[in-house]
Amino acid sequence: MIENIKPMDIEKRSFEIITEILGDRKFPEEQESIIKRVIHTSADFDYADNLKFSPNAVEKALEALRSGCDIVTDTNMAKAGINKTILGSLGGEVHCFMADPDVAKEAKERGVTRAIVSMEKAAKLEKPVIFAIGNAPTALIRIHEMIGTGELKPALVVGVPVGFVNVVESKELIMVDDIPYIVAKGRKGGSNVAAAIINALLYKIKR
Amino acid sequence: MIENIKPMDIEKRSFEIITEILGDRKFPEEQESIIKRVIHTSADFDYADNLKFSPNAVEKALEALRSGCDIVTDTNMAKAGINKTILGSLGGEVHCFMADPDVAKEAKERGVTRAIVSMEKAAKLEKPVIFAIGNAPTALIRIHEMIGTGELKPALVVGVPVGFVNVVESKELIMVDDIPYIVAKGRKGGSNVAAAIINALLYKIKR
Repeated sequence: MIENIKPMDIEKRSFEIITEILGDRKFPEEQESIIKRVIHTSADFDYADNLKFSPNAVEKALEALRSGCDIVTDTNMAKAGINKTILGSLGGEVHCFMADPDVAKEAKERGVTRAIVSMEKAAKLEKPVIFAIGNAPTALIRIHEMIGTGELKPALVVGVPVGFVNVVESKELIMVDDIPYIVAKGRKGGSNVAAAIINALLYKIKR
Repeated sequence: MIENIKPMDIEKRSFEIITEILGDRKFPEEQESIIKRVIHTSADFDYADNLKFSPNAVEKALEALRSGCDIVTDTNMAKAGINKTILGSLGGEVHCFMADPDVAKEAKERGVTRAIVSMEKAAKLEKPVIFAIGNAPTALIRIHEMIGTGELKPALVVGVPVGFVNVVESKELIMVDDIPYIVAKGRKGGSNVAAAIINALLYKIKR
């Protein structure tokens, strides 16, 4: 039976149901709204176990967002899903270089993914950056390499690519780096999950 | 260990792994690439069981796409994820009315969701339309109502909203309508799933 509910109450009711289903399950306070928003966006309770946070990742991410950091995604879908009104009000913007003609050209010439070239382009941004990677493990691997060489020091890496080739491995690499991260261990993730994590962080600052 | 694989081979390898994991599982031939693409986009094998197709849904959808039908989504994320190059080459385009100021204004005045008003706006399009609903159950419910009154006769409804309030019920409503549908039964779905289904259909026509 269709529940008669006001538009503004749908999200609140959804989170109540998620909380009911999670039952006695407890999360660190600063992580809870992020984990629940990912479940809200996927209806997949695996994320209650999959999401891994480096120490103080949320605190550091909020500090960066409040200071007006930019966000770099590896898909236009993730870019589309991020709340740009709130981000903009903090002084930040979202970049996705995947469809840039120069990126496509260089990727083809070098025989690498566009995601790799996109991350190299992002490394040249002069502002602090949060990476929101929901699709390409090669993006995550390149970020890991550039952290290793000192070319890149992200404010946060949201590492939630989805899939079957090098996805699990790319996430394990990021979790040994000495940077703030939020990672969905295993194969699952996606552009929707990446956007949901960024939005959950933004909603902690304002709604 | 990171697998060394050429960019162009990643998707092929992913589908091989999905096929291996599915093992003996068999699907109707015309549905198989759609089911596998949804698993590819989510790494969630629940979709092997969840996806329900009305009789000849794929055949009818391909006919509509080949004839240049348009697509209406209920999120800009789904719109961003759909392959607009192939769609455009067939004569179609993607619409998402959710962020239109007139939609927001009318939704507020009437106390309904923007998704409802967006679907009513879509019903006024003069071309055949495929609906790709990955987020709002209220969109799906409104489509069902307009089919009932004869105001709307979609070429296909991709009914994959995700969530906890009226989501399961909205999908059950669409599955009794006498229209072609592809539905993810239960709570799961999403804008990524909606886009993946549309893209899987487009890739059957050209790549």
